Amino acid sequence: MPKPDTFQTPDDDTRALVRSLIESASEVVLATLRPDTATPYLSRVAMAVDPDGVPMTMVSNLAHHTAALEANSACSLMVEAPASKGDAMNHPRLTLHCHARIIDNDDPQRETLRDLFLAQRPKSKLYIDFPDFRFVRFEIENGLLNGGFGKAYLLAPSDIRH
Amino acid sequence: MPKPDTFQTPDDDTRALVRSLIESASEVVLATLRPDTATPYLSRVAMAVDPDGVPMTMVSNLAHHTAALEANSACSLMVEAPASKGDAMNHPRLTLHCHARIIDNDDPQRETLRDLFLAQRPKSKLYIDFPDFRFVRFEIENGLLNGGFGKAYLLAPSDIRH
Repeated sequence: MPKPDTFQTPDDDTRALVRSLIESASEVVLATLRPDTATPYLSRVAMAVDPDGVPMTMVSNLAHHTAALEANSACSLMVEAPASKGDAMNHPRLTLHCHARIIDNDDPQRETLRDLFLAQRPKSKLYIDFPDFRFVRFEIENGLLNGGFGKAYLLAPSDIRH
Repeated sequence: MPKPDTFQTPDDDTRALVRSLIESASEVVLATLRPDTATPYLSRVAMAVDPDGVPMTMVSNLAHHTAALEANSACSLMVEAPASKGDAMNHPRLTLHCHARIIDNDDPQRETLRDLFLAQRPKSKLYIDFPDFRFVRFEIENGLLNGGFGKAYLLAPSDIRH
C-alpha cells in the first residue's frame, strides 16, 4: 500500500466528490485475482449503490470473475465518471480496495439488494432473477481518490460510505 | 485462466476489432499487484502503440504502479473504445495479460519509443523527458476480447500484434 504521507487529507469536498462518483457510475472496472496465476483479471461490471452507499454488483456463475472471487475475495474497483468528452486522464477516479461478499440467493438481504439494484438499473430486469446470478457486496479496506495532478487522497471506509 | 472451450475462435474480423481498439485508445486501465498484499491495484495510464502494435506507456518513479511493476511484472491492461455515449457494458473491450518490461533511460530503444509516443500523444511533450519517467513495454501472454454478449475470444499474442 502507498505510504499515507504521499496523500492529502480528505475533507468534506473530497467526500462529496467520492459520493458523486459512486452515485453517478452505472458500471465499474473490477480487478480480481486469476485463481491459476494469482495475477490480475479485469472485467467491467454493472453496479448500483448498496444500503451502505458503496457499490454492489451482480455476477453470473458462468463468469470468470465469479470463480476468481470464490477462490480469493480480494479485489479492487475503479469508479469513474460516466463517459464524457475530453481526456479521461483528467477526470477524477476512485479506486476501492475491497473484499467481495457474494450473497447467496437464499440470504434474507437479497430482496433489499434486488429492490435497490432494480430501481437504479431498470434494464437489469432482463437478468436479475436468473438463478445463476448472485449479488456481490464489497467490504471496503480503503480507497484512493485521484482528483487530478497532485491531488491524491487516501480514504477510510467512513470517507466512502454514506 | 478461463478454459479455452468457453471462447469463440478469433478470425480476421476479431483481429480487426482488436487493432481498432488498440489504435483508438489513448489511455488504458492498468492492473498491477500491490507489493504489500499481492492484491490488485488499479490506475489509468496514457498509452501509445509500440513498434509491435501493442500498448506501451510511461511511468513515473513516484507512482505506486511503478513500484508494483518493479516488484512483480505481472499485470493486465483493459483497452476500451474512447468515451462515447451509451452503455459502456455494450462496448467491446479487450483485456491483455502481460508482463511489463520497464525500459531504462539509457536503453538504445528509448529514442524509438519516445518518437512514437510523442507522435501519437503530443501532449506528453510536457513530461516525456522528465528524468523520473520511463517507458514500459508489455510482453503479452494472451488476451481476452469481449465483443458483446456471447462473443468472447481468447487471443494469442499473434492475434494482437500488428
